[in-house]
Amino acid sequence: METKTMNIKVEKAKTSKIDQVDFENLSFGTVFTDHMLICRYKKGSWKVPEIIPYQPLTLDPSAKIFHYGQSIFEGMKAYKDDNDDVWLFRPLDNCRRLNISAKRMAIPELPEEYFMDGLIALLKLEKDWIPKTPGSSLYIRPFIFASGTGFHASPADEYTFIIAFAPSGAYFSGKVKVLIEEKYSRSANGGVGFAKAGGNYAGQFYPTQLAIEKGYNQVIWTDDNTHEFIEEAGAMNIFVRINDTLITAPTSDRILDGITRKSILDIAKDEGITVEVRKITVSEIVEAAKDGSLKEMFGAGTAAVISPIAAFGFRDVDYDLPQLSHSYASLLKKRITDIQYNRAEDKFGWRFKV
Amino acid sequence: METKTMNIKVEKAKTSKIDQVDFENLSFGTVFTDHMLICRYKKGSWKVPEIIPYQPLTLDPSAKIFHYGQSIFEGMKAYKDDNDDVWLFRPLDNCRRLNISAKRMAIPELPEEYFMDGLIALLKLEKDWIPKTPGSSLYIRPFIFASGTGFHASPADEYTFIIAFAPSGAYFSGKVKVLIEEKYSRSANGGVGFAKAGGNYAGQFYPTQLAIEKGYNQVIWTDDNTHEFIEEAGAMNIFVRINDTLITAPTSDRILDGITRKSILDIAKDEGITVEVRKITVSEIVEAAKDGSLKEMFGAGTAAVISPIAAFGFRDVDYDLPQLSHSYASLLKKRITDIQYNRAEDKFGWRFKV
Ligand SMILES: Cc1ncc(COP(=O)(O)O)c(C=O)c1O
Ligand SMILES: Cc1ncc(COP(=O)(O)O)c(C=O)c1O
Repeated sequence: METKTMNIKVEKAKTSKIDQVDFENLSFGTVFTDHMLICRYKKGSWKVPEIIPYQPLTLDPSAKIFHYGQSIFEGMKAYKDDNDDVWLFRPLDNCRRLNISAKRMAIPELPEEYFMDGLIALLKLEKDWIPKTPGSSLYIRPFIFASGTGFHASPADEYTFIIAFAPSGAYFSGKVKVLIEEKYSRSANGGVGFAKAGGNYAGQFYPTQLAIEKGYNQVIWTDDNTHEFIEEAGAMNIFVRINDTLITAPTSDRILDGITRKSILDIAKDEGITVEVRKITVSEIVEAAKDGSLKEMFGAGTAAVISPIAAFGFRDVDYDLPQLSHSYASLLKKRITDIQYNRAEDKFGWRFKV
Repeated sequence: METKTMNIKVEKAKTSKIDQVDFENLSFGTVFTDHMLICRYKKGSWKVPEIIPYQPLTLDPSAKIFHYGQSIFEGMKAYKDDNDDVWLFRPLDNCRRLNISAKRMAIPELPEEYFMDGLIALLKLEKDWIPKTPGSSLYIRPFIFASGTGFHASPADEYTFIIAFAPSGAYFSGKVKVLIEEKYSRSANGGVGFAKAGGNYAGQFYPTQLAIEKGYNQVIWTDDNTHEFIEEAGAMNIFVRINDTLITAPTSDRILDGITRKSILDIAKDEGITVEVRKITVSEIVEAAKDGSLKEMFGAGTAAVISPIAAFGFRDVDYDLPQLSHSYASLLKKRITDIQYNRAEDKFGWRFKV
């Protein structure tokens, strides 16, 4: 059975799994909707995307994704308001960042309309899957991987682009405790840290596991050379509040240019908060924690939204952060989610109606 | 149809593709044999490996390999001598290095006997696929990837280990010209450069493409901090001969501990060559090229064996290397391949009879 939606061919699933889903108790990224968008790159060009039932992929064992980690992804969310209208947040920024990642990973860039039209068509089809439970949302995962074959360490000649959806609950449950890492590193100068490349994440798993065994949830990465400067966390950029100044590290070729991060910077300025984008040393954070001027730390990212950090560990010492009744984190979280869920005016023009 | 080989269950392919292969004109890693070894990690343990016909793999779109690059591999070769006996070269070292990579990438370590017995059983079955044409060999690709699912940046709960074979010709055709890279980097201090992790290779593709566009075959990576020290190439460790001293960089957490590299060091010492394992600066290579003391550079790796470097580029200048009639590269290549192909005594005990 085939219908047309905005030039995108749709093959509908015979049955829906939606009735089997407990929307009140969603974990993160483990339940998938009935359909997915698929688009293939072959013989030098991206073919027109199609929507098909969510289904397993078939790949040759020599597909380069298995051997050379040639893959990139994005993370977005769709939000439903009280009128059941569906919204995206700065989706073109994700589309463009996917292509920035593509370039660095020698993956052919995807036409923007394939991304945008494909995403919109799929969202219209899967509208009923967008949770309305507070704290839940539809997590959107666009990704591209090397499906071309061969045991030769060189770029593939075929790629597959997919968008899949997972109705999801909160990324972190409970308080977030982070460890400032001094031994392992996430990325190199001149490396791929600024790209959402698959291998950046696998490289973090082992050091993060070690941190989890010590009672932390996440690692805060420092530069690989001196380990003096804090950079970002596994899937979040990091903000630090010292006295009343909000500080975050500048982006670089080692740090992901987070969409939440840059939005938070704009909202904070709009709130009249003093904002500094500059290098932050570990020692200044430790000093500030000791003298009481460190008021807040929080992570910012699509999956984690704004996640207040309750404590950080450094060189076997844990530093607790104060519990504020009027924190920047809660103010900024309210402002950004109010825009995302269409509960407030969007003076920045970030909201995108599906 | 099922038979038993050393505890490894074998499901034989109904027909063989071997007659379709032109063994005189093999490229590298594009033709695969009739069978593969497969072994799955589920519910906390590796299951017994099996041999099955070489066939496509079926994976959920949320399998973590597509998203987080959690994959590792090895590269080995099988050699056939004049009596049609089959030999491996230091196979346990590959097995152990796979587990070193596994640990860093948060992949469960594989029992050594699964690797070794599985490989031997598969080699016995595919014996006829080992080329005897000079310069050709059977390339062996063991690899592990995350087959467990979920859009959460954390280690998978299921993995797949596969060994596949590709009868292959030379990795490089013709002279190798390398570019010493000063902008992009391969790995970070405290990163995953020492592991054969998929993502390390994808990260090299774009800078390597840029080098290829300028007329080079490969990039020689330098440290990501100062770019003063040469490290290794895409899939080879690098040796430099200044006057009569053979020099290679020490291994570190940024450099792969190559099996060819360490074998060459032993053979060179055995030949009475003065060997230095120490940091090599770009400026000393450039100076040596200018004053004529730079006699040779070559890459060493399983795929590339020993590949003499004809010229290197640095800051838009190309430096040609002299053509020697008695080079270390050709001496060392003869010695190592004579051991590999069972043409000479193996005083080091490296050869392994299948
Ligand atoms: C490494 C890393 N840093 C930061 C972020 C936050 O980026 P964004 O706000 O665009 O989701 C993410 C998640 O996307 C990430 O993976
Ligand atoms: C990055 C890298 N360096 C060096 C080598 C050479 O290692 P080996 O001699 O064990 O093949 C390889 C290939 O395996 C490699 O991928």
